[in-house]
Amino acid sequence: MEQSFLAWLRGRQRDLPQVDVGIGDDAAVLTPRPGVQTVIASDGIVDGVDFLCDQHSLADIGRKSVAINLSDMAAMGAVPTAILVNLSLPEQAATQTAAGVYEGILAICAEHQLAIAGGDITVYDGPLAISVTILGEVPAGRAWLRSGAVDGDAILVSGAFGGSLLGRHLNFTPRVQAALRLRETVEVHAAMDVSDGLSLDLDRLCAASGVGAELDMDSIPIHDDAQRMAAEQDEPEPPPRHDPVPVFESPMQHALGDGEDFELILAVSQADADRLLSMDIGVPLTQIGHFTGRTGLWMRKKGRLERLSPSGYVHGAAPSANTAQE
Amino acid sequence: MEQSFLAWLRGRQRDLPQVDVGIGDDAAVLTPRPGVQTVIASDGIVDGVDFLCDQHSLADIGRKSVAINLSDMAAMGAVPTAILVNLSLPEQAATQTAAGVYEGILAICAEHQLAIAGGDITVYDGPLAISVTILGEVPAGRAWLRSGAVDGDAILVSGAFGGSLLGRHLNFTPRVQAALRLRETVEVHAAMDVSDGLSLDLDRLCAASGVGAELDMDSIPIHDDAQRMAAEQDEPEPPPRHDPVPVFESPMQHALGDGEDFELILAVSQADADRLLSMDIGVPLTQIGHFTGRTGLWMRKKGRLERLSPSGYVHGAAPSANTAQE
Repeated sequence: MEQSFLAWLRGRQRDLPQVDVGIGDDAAVLTPRPGVQTVIASDGIVDGVDFLCDQHSLADIGRKSVAINLSDMAAMGAVPTAILVNLSLPEQAATQTAAGVYEGILAICAEHQLAIAGGDITVYDGPLAISVTILGEVPAGRAWLRSGAVDGDAILVSGAFGGSLLGRHLNFTPRVQAALRLRETVEVHAAMDVSDGLSLDLDRLCAASGVGAELDMDSIPIHDDAQRMAAEQDEPEPPPRHDPVPVFESPMQHALGDGEDFELILAVSQADADRLLSMDIGVPLTQIGHFTGRTGLWMRKKGRLERLSPSGYVHGAAPSANTAQE
Repeated sequence: MEQSFLAWLRGRQRDLPQVDVGIGDDAAVLTPRPGVQTVIASDGIVDGVDFLCDQHSLADIGRKSVAINLSDMAAMGAVPTAILVNLSLPEQAATQTAAGVYEGILAICAEHQLAIAGGDITVYDGPLAISVTILGEVPAGRAWLRSGAVDGDAILVSGAFGGSLLGRHLNFTPRVQAALRLRETVEVHAAMDVSDGLSLDLDRLCAASGVGAELDMDSIPIHDDAQRMAAEQDEPEPPPRHDPVPVFESPMQHALGDGEDFELILAVSQADADRLLSMDIGVPLTQIGHFTGRTGLWMRKKGRLERLSPSGYVHGAAPSANTAQE
């Protein structure tokens, strides 16, 4: 199957200038442009954890496998250029599964001028698993790291948070275009995408930067999905990546800890934040607080500061709703 | 687990100059050197197909996941620089499994000055699966493709073939050093590593180059393991990647079709071949025939040419011993 499938795939994708040698050799060859650095990330998704084969369309699943990696490029302020895809297929209907998954992969690649430079296919006795590696580029020295936030920086976020399990975790828009517009407009000190939970990921960014965060809780943009999930009282069943035991959570708790929002957290100077908030960069931006010298997460309530425990999804831990352990 | 595991991993590996930003951010950042192209490949292995968790050590399994990718770099004549590792771990003893696999990964990375630039860890209800992406570099325009063999070129191979299932498929030496010495010494027109079977992979190289191959069957280096496997009459049980039904094969059949030898097939001019065969490049080299204008594989027997059907492992096909279908 692999040879004929790769021939099919070669026929389905346009030649893109960023790949000199693509699918069909032992490796792909790319020529880096002068003055750029290579940015590379790799993230996989598996049935039963990140999606459910019996509920989600194969095209949506394929799309998600690429979108989560595009989100990593956005978080670095990088222009994505190419991906490699390793597919592990259950034996039953392997060819149809591969074709279905690739429908979604090809569509999102076409949207983003992203080349498929290689990968492989394995048929095995296990659940559908897709591992994607993404390559991108940034002007040399200009990658947005997690470690650059400084005391006094504004905390900006794109979009709204919580309740992504209702469907957004599959069809979200990775903030690639917004990131490039941000990079043209201001100096971003630090950035990260929210995959595991707004508060947990913000806590990680703070730790990498050696700062803390003071949050204005009323300003946190709570997604309608978080409201709906709280109103339904139960988690949607069966919720991937979450504990099957229903736990009541408020809309705010969903916003702080659900994860898979794939929105950006950004550290910029207050002056740059004010400028951005008066502009249209194609995606809603909200200031939710500022970074401080005092480490940890803090919420301002009636003029007093209270400690906020980060919550979110911890990879490789026994599943439990909103655990804060690292 | 992931955060503490990544912290452990950061502590275990040396800082290598080829990675500017490594594990711990949304993506890794590397600075390409002037005048080089980036070579990138991705290959995964899964329990039950490429190894057997209940028979092979976790360190050997981890080592193999990297070694097969190093072999792809050797096949391109590239210097490997960094890898990204996506681990999918069965729920039971996930942390111990990750640590065991990484023992082998870290050891082979240290041997090859290879940086671990990123990756992720997922715990799921499935078999152990390791997906590795490797980055390397070649002087611009100097990558060895499959498509460069011309009529009259000598066919050289490194090492010997067949019977890798007896253990070599796990602990083979990827021909990275030999490839670099070859590149310094001669002009390699085309190259490929043998993962699926000498005859099947040679047939693919021929197809990519638009040539055929005429083989001197007596010169094909048959590994002792191929002799042992033929002598035992049965396949070792249970043989990964092969049909459980025992099929008698001669040592030559094992050499032509077993695969996972991870030796190099090289196309060089006859003059360069003669030079190489009189030198020591650190690995045995053998000329097994030459490329011809007539497409297909041909074997010379008693002065007559007979067609040879390529045999080997076809990815994603229903398992069957030595099928030639593509």
